Amino acid sequence: MLGVAGILRPMSEQSNRAVLLLWSPDRPGIVAEVSHFIFTYGGSIVDSNQHYDPVSETFLMRIEWDITAFALPEERIASAFEPIAIKFNMTFRLELSSRTTRMAIMVSKYDHCLYDLLLRNREGETHADICLVLSNHETLSNVAELFDVPFEHVSITKETREVAEEKQRSLLRDYRVDLVVLARYMQILSPTFVADYPNRVINIHHSFLPAFVGARPYHQAYERGVKIIGATSHYVTDDLDQGPIIEQDVTRVSHRDTIRTMVQKGRDLERLVLSRAVKLHLEHRVMAIGNRTVVFE
Amino acid sequence: MLGVAGILRPMSEQSNRAVLLLWSPDRPGIVAEVSHFIFTYGGSIVDSNQHYDPVSETFLMRIEWDITAFALPEERIASAFEPIAIKFNMTFRLELSSRTTRMAIMVSKYDHCLYDLLLRNREGETHADICLVLSNHETLSNVAELFDVPFEHVSITKETREVAEEKQRSLLRDYRVDLVVLARYMQILSPTFVADYPNRVINIHHSFLPAFVGARPYHQAYERGVKIIGATSHYVTDDLDQGPIIEQDVTRVSHRDTIRTMVQKGRDLERLVLSRAVKLHLEHRVMAIGNRTVVFE
Amino acid sequence: MLGVAGILRPMSEQSNRAVLLLWSPDRPGIVAEVSHFIFTYGGSIVDSNQHYDPVSETFLMRIEWDITAFALPEERIASAFEPIAIKFNMTFRLELSSRTTRMAIMVSKYDHCLYDLLLRNREGETHADICLVLSNHETLSNVAELFDVPFEHVSITKETREVAEEKQRSLLRDYRVDLVVLARYMQILSPTFVADYPNRVINIHHSFLPAFVGARPYHQAYERGVKIIGATSHYVTDDLDQGPIIEQDVTRVSHRDTIRTMVQKGRDLERLVLSRAVKLHLEHRVMAIGNRTVVFE
Amino acid sequence: MLGVAGILRPMSEQSNRAVLLLWSPDRPGIVAEVSHFIFTYGGSIVDSNQHYDPVSETFLMRIEWDITAFALPEERIASAFEPIAIKFNMTFRLELSSRTTRMAIMVSKYDHCLYDLLLRNREGETHADICLVLSNHETLSNVAELFDVPFEHVSITKETREVAEEKQRSLLRDYRVDLVVLARYMQILSPTFVADYPNRVINIHHSFLPAFVGARPYHQAYERGVKIIGATSHYVTDDLDQGPIIEQDVTRVSHRDTIRTMVQKGRDLERLVLSRAVKLHLEHRVMAIGNRTVVFE
Repeated sequence: MLGVAGILRPMSEQSNRAVLLLWSPDRPGIVAEVSHFIFTYGGSIVDSNQHYDPVSETFLMRIEWDITAFALPEERIASAFEPIAIKFNMTFRLELSSRTTRMAIMVSKYDHCLYDLLLRNREGETHADICLVLSNHETLSNVAELFDVPFEHVSITKETREVAEEKQRSLLRDYRVDLVVLARYMQILSPTFVADYPNRVINIHHSFLPAFVGARPYHQAYERGVKIIGATSHYVTDDLDQGPIIEQDVTRVSHRDTIRTMVQKGRDLERLVLSRAVKLHLEHRVMAIGNRTVVFE
Repeated sequence: MLGVAGILRPMSEQSNRAVLLLWSPDRPGIVAEVSHFIFTYGGSIVDSNQHYDPVSETFLMRIEWDITAFALPEERIASAFEPIAIKFNMTFRLELSSRTTRMAIMVSKYDHCLYDLLLRNREGETHADICLVLSNHETLSNVAELFDVPFEHVSITKETREVAEEKQRSLLRDYRVDLVVLARYMQILSPTFVADYPNRVINIHHSFLPAFVGARPYHQAYERGVKIIGATSHYVTDDLDQGPIIEQDVTRVSHRDTIRTMVQKGRDLERLVLSRAVKLHLEHRVMAIGNRTVVFE
Repeated sequence: MLGVAGILRPMSEQSNRAVLLLWSPDRPGIVAEVSHFIFTYGGSIVDSNQHYDPVSETFLMRIEWDITAFALPEERIASAFEPIAIKFNMTFRLELSSRTTRMAIMVSKYDHCLYDLLLRNREGETHADICLVLSNHETLSNVAELFDVPFEHVSITKETREVAEEKQRSLLRDYRVDLVVLARYMQILSPTFVADYPNRVINIHHSFLPAFVGARPYHQAYERGVKIIGATSHYVTDDLDQGPIIEQDVTRVSHRDTIRTMVQKGRDLERLVLSRAVKLHLEHRVMAIGNRTVVFE
Repeated sequence: MLGVAGILRPMSEQSNRAVLLLWSPDRPGIVAEVSHFIFTYGGSIVDSNQHYDPVSETFLMRIEWDITAFALPEERIASAFEPIAIKFNMTFRLELSSRTTRMAIMVSKYDHCLYDLLLRNREGETHADICLVLSNHETLSNVAELFDVPFEHVSITKETREVAEEKQRSLLRDYRVDLVVLARYMQILSPTFVADYPNRVINIHHSFLPAFVGARPYHQAYERGVKIIGATSHYVTDDLDQGPIIEQDVTRVSHRDTIRTMVQKGRDLERLVLSRAVKLHLEHRVMAIGNRTVVFE
């Protein structure tokens, strides 16, 4: 029999897990059928969440199980599940803890989010394989080096934008990247780039979206005289700062705050919000549905 | 086929729901078996949550389903489920939305939590049958009257404590009370009283427990010079302010706060925290396990 | 000698106080001169705050003192101060605790903010003379009655808007109203109305401004999929939801929240944020500067 | 005339500032006299705060001014002020921005607070001269090296405790340390050590004090089943975890949190709370009064 303590630690700490994410028109019997499937092959359900989205009339489910004693080899689980998916007209995604997400971090010159992501991953808070730091400046190559992560520099000018992006995409392919994290990367990605990684590019925007879209949000916040500032992490889509929101947080400011101190307070927010969003994504807890997300914490 | 929008509204807004709460030594197959049980009789699962508590080595589950088309009459569901409970060595509780919780509110002289509970219930935020306001003072009888709730006065002195409590218990029985809410009730209940309502007496303590147990917590907080004050809602046990915590919240204070302004800020906390705890209990989202709670929000 | 405890309680609890608010181009010596003025006449400074606003290049100051032993009668303080104001090219406002702010509350059909404002004032958290509840519906007349506050009904239709507003303004004049609080009042005020009460009409908007300006902000928030909702209290200007912000607060939401539960959570925010803004205004702690506020808490 | 922008930036960004902190039995005329003193010598007041503490019957004041055009040399300001201090029976402290606080960080093996303090100081959020990292382990010498800060190792065992502490105190003297920050330093300081630095040793305790004093607070929090955890930064006194609190903050936890994830969430709190407390101290905004603090933010 499996040690109980072992069975129930979350995926982030465990290497023998499968997670099934599924989107389906609502039909009675889904939970019963899915849990029966797992039980039949000897899986032990560790976590299970569901949600019905009334806007899109979609049923969403996340189910995580221990596959130590699973009667199917990992590579055959998805195909074994397929008949159920067809029966209920589901879209599904199977994630396995044995396959660590390969993550690239794109940066420009700010280092605070980069440091934060690297430190947390090293300390075991997140479990990504950070395989690349990609930048349009040389500035942060030493940080990448400090953490033994390959650093690639692709400079971008107005004229070279298209070619440069082609090169970036090629690098991301070469490094077999699953997830792109924009850690205060100061360039806008083209629709072509975005299409390569649907709901797999995470950005941090330094405002409480949808307030203060676009450039210099702290300046906008200062001028509007708000009493609270925020940060927002979201998947990148073709519409600037309009993608599905994963996580947000806020902090108080007052008339005593200058733009300079707002930027400082904001840095703490950016770090926390981006790292939480990345962690939730890495644990396969975020399901996009239209322009919103369901986050099974 | 059932209307989808109808199927998935939470219990609080719906009258055709069943909720099963179960505590079990962890065993593979529970989720599959329980969801199969519901599916077999034509139930449609609306919400399902689970948790494994490593301290007590207990698996806890809450599952809510629509019983509109359920093939079993309400009064036979529990007995039909019993064989599964025996098989997995479970403790379980079945709650039905058709049976509204009968709730008594015990107060002394403070009216802010009483008003808050009555207003929220009238506005439909909570769905209790508030059948009694019970007090050791006459002070708040007019509030009860305003909301058409029966008011009973049982005065308490040192000498009459035992007799008085006997009378209180008798009244609670007469009114067939399921849940007792102490809305700043300033007396301590005896173990006998508490034993009548295990995990069914909810108290609000005006501090961030376990800090400032006992009397005059705002005074204690002021003297200690804390920068944040809180409120805690918990089930009442024989140990003063030591029962399982359901909900807590906090707010900032500074050297500018006097005990008077702390009390004012605290009133807002007390209202919010107590009403959230009561709402969670009424929706059968709180499962006690030892001296802690699992809250399936 | 004055009793020390008496000297230093804040204005909200005290009846022998003066508060001077002043706006000035920055010049050395202001603090010294103002504090000397107070000391000369035997005043005892209780609180003093200052701020320099770099955008407008304005120095703002709030100074509160005990006038129990002040050598000038109340009605002569302002004129005695005038020479200093002229010397430093100041704008100033003198407030006296002996003159309680006369406050009107305008409502439509929602009662939660109205109840909250009335209860807090009755409990002594705020010290206004709530002299009028003014509504475009009869719905809430009973609430006003419960608190012994005069209720006036002025119905508004598209055709009668202008006449109706004339009548409202006339009523506010008749009741000698200093401060108008829009407690979820669902009509837009004309520039003429607003001009009568510059920075003396406080509104509560049920979003975290500047996000979700205008109608149905909870619906907008739901559709955008934000993870945090808010409420904003601001002075009313001619631009809808664009006036100087006094106070904001937020609360978490998730995919589990429906518009209905957002509205419920929002009600708590609206109550808290509006009452805090009103309290700050009543204690003369809010100084508008352009479209922002300085709040001396 | 002084440039306005220059006059009003806070001390943290400015090198021509004086800050006067004073404790006094309350007497009318203090504010007038102090501001007159500053004005007489050509100082320009940048910030001024006051508070009356009713428990100790003490008046506290913090006043910050620009000394660019001050008619007194820095070393003579204190003696020039002395007659006023004597007249009002004040205790006072004069701080000058030209004299940067020399700060030592004491650590054991945890690096997260150390990194945080070093990074923020390098980025200009704080303005200390971090002159020493002092540890009872060699572990973090490389971090100190990375930031070019001298590292001293003094190992401690039960037997050598007294000698070791003597050596620590000697090192702190050698480095002319003004402020000692315990960044998760896992040893208790003796009264002798504490007496060297009254209200100049800042500790971070990983709980919401006074809850969970002493060892393993996350374990205590887990066992008690709290729904919120916190961190507390305070001055160190002879009573363990009982010194004057400077800053606290909290974050939500749930039954899903393990001790491991509490520790992770706690690290973020510890970093934020300690760095805020250190920043407040460095800007001379914290005034201890008995076992509490007045924090003039």
